[in-house]
Amino acid sequence: MDLEDNVFMLPGPVKIHPRILRAMSLPSIAHRSPEFTEVIGEIRDLLKYLFDSQNDVALVSGSGTAGLDMAICNMFGKDDKVLNITNGKFGERFADLSEMYSNSVRLVYPWGKPPDLEQVAAELEKGDYKGITLCHNETSTGMVNPAPEIGELVKKHDVLFLMDGITSVGGLEVRLDEWNVDIAIMGSQKCLGAPAGLSALSVSERAKEKWIPDACYYLSLKKHVEKLREKSQTPYTPAVPLLLAMKEALLMLKEEGLQNRIERISKLGQATRAAMDALGVTLFPERKYASNTVNAMNYPEGIEDLQFRNILKKKHSVIIGGAQAHLKGKIFRIGTMGICSFTDLTACIGAIESTFKELGFEFQEGAGTGAIVDYM
Amino acid sequence: MDLEDNVFMLPGPVKIHPRILRAMSLPSIAHRSPEFTEVIGEIRDLLKYLFDSQNDVALVSGSGTAGLDMAICNMFGKDDKVLNITNGKFGERFADLSEMYSNSVRLVYPWGKPPDLEQVAAELEKGDYKGITLCHNETSTGMVNPAPEIGELVKKHDVLFLMDGITSVGGLEVRLDEWNVDIAIMGSQKCLGAPAGLSALSVSERAKEKWIPDACYYLSLKKHVEKLREKSQTPYTPAVPLLLAMKEALLMLKEEGLQNRIERISKLGQATRAAMDALGVTLFPERKYASNTVNAMNYPEGIEDLQFRNILKKKHSVIIGGAQAHLKGKIFRIGTMGICSFTDLTACIGAIESTFKELGFEFQEGAGTGAIVDYM
Repeated sequence: MDLEDNVFMLPGPVKIHPRILRAMSLPSIAHRSPEFTEVIGEIRDLLKYLFDSQNDVALVSGSGTAGLDMAICNMFGKDDKVLNITNGKFGERFADLSEMYSNSVRLVYPWGKPPDLEQVAAELEKGDYKGITLCHNETSTGMVNPAPEIGELVKKHDVLFLMDGITSVGGLEVRLDEWNVDIAIMGSQKCLGAPAGLSALSVSERAKEKWIPDACYYLSLKKHVEKLREKSQTPYTPAVPLLLAMKEALLMLKEEGLQNRIERISKLGQATRAAMDALGVTLFPERKYASNTVNAMNYPEGIEDLQFRNILKKKHSVIIGGAQAHLKGKIFRIGTMGICSFTDLTACIGAIESTFKELGFEFQEGAGTGAIVDYM
Repeated sequence: MDLEDNVFMLPGPVKIHPRILRAMSLPSIAHRSPEFTEVIGEIRDLLKYLFDSQNDVALVSGSGTAGLDMAICNMFGKDDKVLNITNGKFGERFADLSEMYSNSVRLVYPWGKPPDLEQVAAELEKGDYKGITLCHNETSTGMVNPAPEIGELVKKHDVLFLMDGITSVGGLEVRLDEWNVDIAIMGSQKCLGAPAGLSALSVSERAKEKWIPDACYYLSLKKHVEKLREKSQTPYTPAVPLLLAMKEALLMLKEEGLQNRIERISKLGQATRAAMDALGVTLFPERKYASNTVNAMNYPEGIEDLQFRNILKKKHSVIIGGAQAHLKGKIFRIGTMGICSFTDLTACIGAIESTFKELGFEFQEGAGTGAIVDYM
């Protein structure tokens, strides 16, 4: 297994372009210097392009979970009632966070199944919620949650809508303004294709009216938003190399064009499913909700997770994802975010075919890779 | 000003060795893979070497302030009384954090002046404190606070001792066990010479008995300590490139030897003061408390801060620090941490001499650089 030469198709982190690695490798730079202030200002403006909204943004040196924490701990206090929709690992993380800082009520659905919108509406009818959380693209199950529909309910009931967009922003159709999203969170190592370690938030005017100014220190949303807007700076020392990398990744996104990237990712996601159909491998979530940034597939009978992914990794230098929590061993996941190409996908599916054959699973050889060609 | 070729002598961030930049530039790597788990395990063991203690360690993807936040928010709740000693910007930050999460009492001393130990003792005599905070090396004023003496008081009164070691650990003499330090915090971009964006904490057994398990989420000390000790992992996605860089920086520290590095830094700090003495420039803090990782000097009359540092930067490609808060314009600061060499220091002092001359300050030419030679 060559760490520097492989086909890397996890549902995040994802393949990083050498241009980004080179941009990251600048020697020390003073983070309060005019040169770096300019970099941060460019990132701020490019993040607005990424989020496709003129809302203020915040950039924090920390993982996507730091971004989720920042959203919850600054918006909700002990007495605030928050409705958490969960149907996967990351919806649950949002709910765990809400439980820590506020009065959380969970609507729990099976992993991979959509929420019951009537039940959500009925709960919001109670009228005493300050906010609702939703994981837009549930990476753990490869499904997209109905954010526009939740956005409609949010508008009707005047609650704050916090959306985990960590694996959707920059990869799937995301319309924050239309969907009435108050805070959306992204992570650097997902659809943007930058290294892990940064999270950014898009923050509506309504959210700014309702945030709690002194709820936390390092993760203060107010300080991050205001410092970035007014001074092109972060309140505390930023992770300089990661910001240099993020700027380059954002420039690459802009060069491709947000809409073009979303369309390309959409085709990659569809092609992955077409290949799996052709091989007789079934999807884990309902097809209607299948995600184009990460496809989750049920293991065919007799294929053992670790053995399968070990052959892929060691023999073919192809990295795909296993599953999390109770789904471990039952599904595998293929990420198609960022700069992932049809060339990468073809190589990945070819290696999967070879490994299936080695493990005795019967299928029509070449059917998977063949199915991709139609989408290329 | 060439961002890629200069003499970089801030009090952090500091010069980064190209070996570290190269180590950082690896393509994507799965942070839960066996390969990366091994990297994290190595970092954990090397951090214990850095802290010179067998105490457990935590590694968080965030700045030094994230580390400070982590120390306070996990150790002290609303009703816990905490004594904060402040005589500079970072002592104040520790106090601001304590004020946010706990019942903080400040002992405030002028910037650059040592705390009155009798007053500290008298305050602790009251007997109801859970902890005390001290910034060991106060970067804002170039002074070292009397941590061993505070450690003695801590032992007598059985309070938790939280020490900001962000610019001392790995650069100054630090004896956590002898000084009864319960939590010490370091930052990656200081004495270690790695890029900004990571913080590590050394955590005593006593601290682990008294921490608050569910005080916060992303910054949970318990989760970070336990996951690192038991699984060689971090609870949430780590900033992968920064960890690769930190591992390389820790290896470089170990190759040099912790004690050797501290001695080298000590000579660099002394040489800086000898050069300034020779030029007739006075020290800001009392000499007895002067730090060897950052020297703070009073500007000679007639030398204007921004003009001085701009000439240094633009004409000589030498980067040194100005001041913070009310000291802005009054002092300048020279950092000698990490891999800073006598060659760097000589170049820096030479550029300062040239700039002083250009700005009309009178001194004996060559006296500054000459003074360094004795220490080389």
